[in-house]
Amino acid sequence: MKKKVHILGIDDMPFSFGDKKVDIVGVIMRGNSYIEGVLRTTIEVDGRDATSALAELINGTRHREQLRVAMVDGAALGGFNVVDGEEIYGETGLPIITVTKEKPDEKKMIGALKKHFDDWEERWKIISKGEMKKLELEYPLYIKCWGISFEDAKNVIKFSTIRGAIPEPLRVAHLIASGMKKGES
Amino acid sequence: MKKKVHILGIDDMPFSFGDKKVDIVGVIMRGNSYIEGVLRTTIEVDGRDATSALAELINGTRHREQLRVAMVDGAALGGFNVVDGEEIYGETGLPIITVTKEKPDEKKMIGALKKHFDDWEERWKIISKGEMKKLELEYPLYIKCWGISFEDAKNVIKFSTIRGAIPEPLRVAHLIASGMKKGES
Repeated sequence: MKKKVHILGIDDMPFSFGDKKVDIVGVIMRGNSYIEGVLRTTIEVDGRDATSALAELINGTRHREQLRVAMVDGAALGGFNVVDGEEIYGETGLPIITVTKEKPDEKKMIGALKKHFDDWEERWKIISKGEMKKLELEYPLYIKCWGISFEDAKNVIKFSTIRGAIPEPLRVAHLIASGMKKGES
Repeated sequence: MKKKVHILGIDDMPFSFGDKKVDIVGVIMRGNSYIEGVLRTTIEVDGRDATSALAELINGTRHREQLRVAMVDGAALGGFNVVDGEEIYGETGLPIITVTKEKPDEKKMIGALKKHFDDWEERWKIISKGEMKKLELEYPLYIKCWGISFEDAKNVIKFSTIRGAIPEPLRVAHLIASGMKKGES
């Protein structure tokens, strides 16, 4: 994959106890620097609409044809609103990479899901889709991929990272999301 | 001035008829690419609090010590909430550049101020502060400067612009502001 491809980075805003909705920020970046566009959509905190919202966000942007891959911060947004990478890839044709810095603790996650949700099994089925691999870079990352090979995903992450562990489209999406919500990122 | 200085770009979100408040977005960028932080504050549409809000935004950020200059999109934010560059520089010690692509039409502006505001003379006094100079670059820009010479301001604008007329900190602030408000920038 070329270094100047258009990458969509997706992260959620922080939310407070009692919030029913949470905004999702998308940043479209060429390679590791030039920002082409900024997107926003809204999902329910702990809802079930993250997958459809992301598919709509991707299919709806005027940058769709330029996009080559999307990176999502983790397997769920807005609390436990689980992201089905396989379904988003199926709905949009855009390769999806979910990225986390820490290896998720499956036992803890199942415990939390069981405690809070009647549909915990369905949510767990979505979260546990796909194979998680550890990326051995300067800072390790754990990723899952749909529509893109592990090797290609590794390359995209490498060339889109400037400093630290997080690729620029995700890092900037995170800065915007927290800055907009809290006043300073 | 060095090319990797920290620049704060400031723009306002679009607003709809009837909105009483409007959000202001600040982007802290090193040179023309690496984003260090994103700030947000809120002012009144057509109010008189833009100057104090920007001074507080600048003095309040944890990046204050790194900042070398701020660029503001135009002489007013949130409608006719006029920005007093001289006062912001006085309150913060941070050099301020206001930037517009079109040369403002003074007659039109006075007409609009007179029509809408009892305090139009005070607002005009603020808007008309400082000397406007035309920057002869690939695309011309009209700027006013406080705490920085015209030549230094020209250099900062040159090295922080990648494509088109608008320096990156302002271009990205604009993308975030419109993306957050409208869903797509």
